[in-house]
Amino acid sequence: MRLAIDAMGGDNAPQAIVQGAMDAVAQINDLHITLIGDESKIKPFLTNEHHIDILHTTEVITGDDEPVRAVRRKKNSSIVLMAQEVKEKRADACISAGNTGALMSAGLFVVGRIKGIDRPALSPTLPTLDGKGFLMLDVGANVDAKVQHLVQYAIMGSIYTEKVRGITNPRIGLLNVGTEDGKGNDMTKKVFAKLQEAPIHFIGNVEARDLLTGAADVVVTDGFTGNVALKTIEGTAMMMFSLLKETLMGSFKTKLAAGLIKGDLKGLKDKLDYSEYGGAGLFGLAAPVIKAHGSSNGRAVLSAIKQACHMVEHNVTDTIQTTISTMDQIKGED
Amino acid sequence: MRLAIDAMGGDNAPQAIVQGAMDAVAQINDLHITLIGDESKIKPFLTNEHHIDILHTTEVITGDDEPVRAVRRKKNSSIVLMAQEVKEKRADACISAGNTGALMSAGLFVVGRIKGIDRPALSPTLPTLDGKGFLMLDVGANVDAKVQHLVQYAIMGSIYTEKVRGITNPRIGLLNVGTEDGKGNDMTKKVFAKLQEAPIHFIGNVEARDLLTGAADVVVTDGFTGNVALKTIEGTAMMMFSLLKETLMGSFKTKLAAGLIKGDLKGLKDKLDYSEYGGAGLFGLAAPVIKAHGSSNGRAVLSAIKQACHMVEHNVTDTIQTTISTMDQIKGED
Repeated sequence: MRLAIDAMGGDNAPQAIVQGAMDAVAQINDLHITLIGDESKIKPFLTNEHHIDILHTTEVITGDDEPVRAVRRKKNSSIVLMAQEVKEKRADACISAGNTGALMSAGLFVVGRIKGIDRPALSPTLPTLDGKGFLMLDVGANVDAKVQHLVQYAIMGSIYTEKVRGITNPRIGLLNVGTEDGKGNDMTKKVFAKLQEAPIHFIGNVEARDLLTGAADVVVTDGFTGNVALKTIEGTAMMMFSLLKETLMGSFKTKLAAGLIKGDLKGLKDKLDYSEYGGAGLFGLAAPVIKAHGSSNGRAVLSAIKQACHMVEHNVTDTIQTTISTMDQIKGED
Repeated sequence: MRLAIDAMGGDNAPQAIVQGAMDAVAQINDLHITLIGDESKIKPFLTNEHHIDILHTTEVITGDDEPVRAVRRKKNSSIVLMAQEVKEKRADACISAGNTGALMSAGLFVVGRIKGIDRPALSPTLPTLDGKGFLMLDVGANVDAKVQHLVQYAIMGSIYTEKVRGITNPRIGLLNVGTEDGKGNDMTKKVFAKLQEAPIHFIGNVEARDLLTGAADVVVTDGFTGNVALKTIEGTAMMMFSLLKETLMGSFKTKLAAGLIKGDLKGLKDKLDYSEYGGAGLFGLAAPVIKAHGSSNGRAVLSAIKQACHMVEHNVTDTIQTTISTMDQIKGED
């Protein structure tokens, strides 16, 4: 198996990327990794070159670049060259912790879509109270989604969750404003009807309030709503930690308590850390493309690498294509 | 000033409703309250009838009733009779902690809309880190919103925030998937352009991640997205409290710490308790209609009563109507 990895993407690049790559080849048999980026910056961290090579480039797409334009103009950027490795079959899958929009554009324009999938979906696995996590898609690849897109997301999410996360017959829910059948806006009502006929275990509507209690293994939504839900979770968790910190620093008594539970609170924070679950897949592309979190450390990069390997080993892309090809009714009906 | 209040709505009815009403007339001059509901259930809690009378009915719309149908069929329900009091000018405003959908239906069909407002918006004030709170609308009155609806929400939210919350020149933001101009789906892009021309202090796009840090005083969104954002905040906060509780009960050491900070954690919970900010207004109706939280205690009912009084005193409804009437360009263009 060969992976192409953008060595220059993310807050801790290239160190965290290189570290994750070295750990991965040490753990996974027959894994070869191509790191794409500035050789002079990568080399100092690459203490073991076994099964790792470097594709040198100094061009980088930054977080400030306008994604679509950057992918078109910066032909030698690490993200674009990474996607080329996959397109030209020199790599089975690719990973970047860089500019999400640029990765989506490179995925769409360079790697290309699976036949039958209209739009890729950005698909992170988010933490739940029981620690099992759930997959939410789309969280922003496609902010003007149509009915058939959400049906395609449901099928892709189901296949991924069964094959890669090992959950048999995963429960697929539709994010909606109420749990009852018949709830929702025009679009979710239409999607609901189509999901009932799809070859998945559809459990109906899921309310945003129940996302983190694991109401479903896969939650399907349009990219606009999914983005808002994801960022609301992040914002609310950040606010709670701020308030908790403020509370614990409030008096001598609370500071004493804070000292006693410091380690345990770290554990609480780790429970909410979704880097443990790997990166967000860009499902619907012709090969696995993984967006690792921008703040990924070496462990998070390792998780994303394992995730990419599982997707390749279990033929997720082929299975999606085969399943979709048997379902002409979900294409182009909206 | 006269208020009509549904005495039978909410988890703690009628006790909390009656308590809130008695506290309100004790604090607010010239306030008269009509409690609508079962006299035999209200009386035991009504220890002071000064400025409070009862409109007796035994019919109630429950949380399980389908809202629109219930409002049409249960003509003598406390919610419908309450709305009638407003429609027939026997009350200046009304409040219910009952079935939200039924209150919206009674508001729309009985109280009626402000001329020029196409759809009412459910508009709660939510907590922020600095304790000031922000108004979000719509959170679910209208799940199939159009461009002009969101522009109307912005104007209503701005007027309410200035007049009732006393914030001069309130900052109006549009909930979106990024903060940059030009971000968003088809609808938010169109709304953005119109908000730039509206007679408000529009500060641009606001990301869901920044809602609780008080990025704007008023956040405008469609009812579907707003409902998801609101319920995601609730769900995430609940999950955090569960995890915190679990962490604090984990060992002897953490239990000791928990004992030390118990009171402070209660304070943290109170900060997130939006009953302090009153109820959610149903903006756009011909008179103030307030949805108090279903779990309202007497204090929350009192807050909602004060809010209704402020809305009446400051002529919020008339100001909205006058402002909208000068803005033909926001009507019927989508």
